[in-house]
Amino acid sequence: MPHAFLLHLTSSDPRPPRYPGLYAHGLFFALLGKLDPGLAAAVHAAPRKPFTLAALEASPPAGRGGEARSPGEVVLRITTLDDGLFGPLLGVLLREGVDGLALGDHPYRLARVVATPQGSPLAGRRTWEELAAAPPTRCLRLRFRTPTVFATSKPGRRARHTPLPDPLLIAKSLLSSWQHHSPLRFPEVEAAALLAVFELDLELTRFADLRFERAQAAKGFFPGFTGVVEVHCHSDSLEAQRALGILQAYAFYAGVGAKTAYGLGLTMPY
Amino acid sequence: MPHAFLLHLTSSDPRPPRYPGLYAHGLFFALLGKLDPGLAAAVHAAPRKPFTLAALEASPPAGRGGEARSPGEVVLRITTLDDGLFGPLLGVLLREGVDGLALGDHPYRLARVVATPQGSPLAGRRTWEELAAAPPTRCLRLRFRTPTVFATSKPGRRARHTPLPDPLLIAKSLLSSWQHHSPLRFPEVEAAALLAVFELDLELTRFADLRFERAQAAKGFFPGFTGVVEVHCHSDSLEAQRALGILQAYAFYAGVGAKTAYGLGLTMPY
Repeated sequence: MPHAFLLHLTSSDPRPPRYPGLYAHGLFFALLGKLDPGLAAAVHAAPRKPFTLAALEASPPAGRGGEARSPGEVVLRITTLDDGLFGPLLGVLLREGVDGLALGDHPYRLARVVATPQGSPLAGRRTWEELAAAPPTRCLRLRFRTPTVFATSKPGRRARHTPLPDPLLIAKSLLSSWQHHSPLRFPEVEAAALLAVFELDLELTRFADLRFERAQAAKGFFPGFTGVVEVHCHSDSLEAQRALGILQAYAFYAGVGAKTAYGLGLTMPY
Repeated sequence: MPHAFLLHLTSSDPRPPRYPGLYAHGLFFALLGKLDPGLAAAVHAAPRKPFTLAALEASPPAGRGGEARSPGEVVLRITTLDDGLFGPLLGVLLREGVDGLALGDHPYRLARVVATPQGSPLAGRRTWEELAAAPPTRCLRLRFRTPTVFATSKPGRRARHTPLPDPLLIAKSLLSSWQHHSPLRFPEVEAAALLAVFELDLELTRFADLRFERAQAAKGFFPGFTGVVEVHCHSDSLEAQRALGILQAYAFYAGVGAKTAYGLGLTMPY
C-alpha cells in the first residue's frame, strides 16, 4: 500500500543543507543499505524507483500548513510505492534516527515522523484497492509543489525536457507509473485505449501560479514548473473518467514527471 | 511588405467598448467593404487572414510605453501581411476617420495613426527581404502580449485548445503563416526539414509572467496564455537557426496561434 510520510530532522547547525534533494537521496540509500544491502542495490538499479523523495521548501507560518520549520530543521517527504518498503524503512529510520542521520556533511536527529493526514496534509496512506476505487472524474486538478519536468527521449540519444503542464504528458506519466507499481494495473489493452482517449480528449482548462524554476536533481539541473493545473476530459467514456479519478488520487504518492526520487514533481490533488 | 500600425480612436463616451476585439473586427471589414466589396469578401472568406487585429489593453502610464490612453480612447493595433492591403486600408481609414468609425454602437474619431517604431514599439514595417535577412539565432525570445492559444483539429470533428507555449506549436504556427503569406517562402522540402528539426531540437528554456486568461474572440471564448518565453534550438543546422531568426522577426507582424484576427496571439520578439 502506498505511504506518504514526513521526517522532521533537526540539527544544531542552523545553515540549511546545500543540496537537500541530493543529500536526502543519499540518506535514503544509506538507510536502505543498513537495512538490506541487496534491497538497496536492487532499488538503486531499478529504472523506475519505488519511492519519491523531496526536501520541502521553506513553509508557511506555523498553524497554516502544519510543516513549520525552525532554523536547523529540515523536512523530508518520502513516499513508498512498493508494499515491502514502508515497514522496514520506518524501522531502520527510527532505530538510526536516535544516533543521527547525515544529510551531506551535517548530522541530523530525527525529531518527528508524521505519517497521517491529521499530522500534515502531505502525509497519509491508501491501499491499492482504495486508490482503484477513487471516484471517477472528468476533471484532473493537481498542484505541482516542487519543480516538475517531463523528459523525452528522441532519436540520436537526444534528451529533451518539457517544463510545461502538458495534459497528455501528465496523464501518461501517472498511468505508466500506475502500470509499473500497482498490483491492480489496467490490462494492456485497456491501458492503450486509455492513452488513446487521453491523447484526443484531454484539454488544459485552467492554470494558476505557473512558475518556471530551474532545479537540481541528481547530477544535473533541470528546467521545471510549479503551479496549479486543471485538465478536463471531453470523453464520455466511463473507463477514462474512472482512470482519471484513480490517477488523480495516485498522484499524491507517485508524483509526476522525471526525477521524483530527487525532489522533483511533488504533486497534490486538490 | 508587412506593416504594423496603431489607430488611436477617441469617443465622447468614456465607457470602454464591451467587445473591443469583435467590434474592431467588424470595423475592419466595414472599412474594407467601403474600399472594395470584392476584396472584403475575399479577405473574409480566406481561411488564413492576411492581417491581425487587437484592441490593446489598458496601457502603462504615459511616457513608458507610448500607448497611453485617456477615458474614451481605444487603441487598435493592425498588422497587414498582404502587400496590397496596407496602402488602400490606410487611405480609407484617413478618409472615413474624419466622419467617425463605429466600434459596436459607439462612434469614434480617428485621432492618430502611429506607424513607426519612433511612435510606438508596437508599430513598424519590414520588407519581406529584410525579414528573410534577419540574423540567425538559436534562441527564440517572444513575449505574448494578448492571450495566445493553439487550436488543433483531432479526429471526429474535435477541436482541442492548447493554452501553453509549446515550442513546436509556436514554431509551426509561425512557419505555416510565413509559408502562406511570404513571397519568400521556403521550398516545400526545406520547410519539411525545418519542421523535423524543430520537432527534435526545440526546448523551452525559460518562461516568466505566464498567466492563464480566458479571452473572447469572434463568437467564442478561448483559453489562452500570456507571458515571456525563451526557446532554445539544440540543432547545429544553420538553416534552422536562419529560419528561427526569420520567424522571430516575423512574429511581430503575424502573431502566434489561433484567432490573431480577433485580438489573440499578439507577440513581440525581445
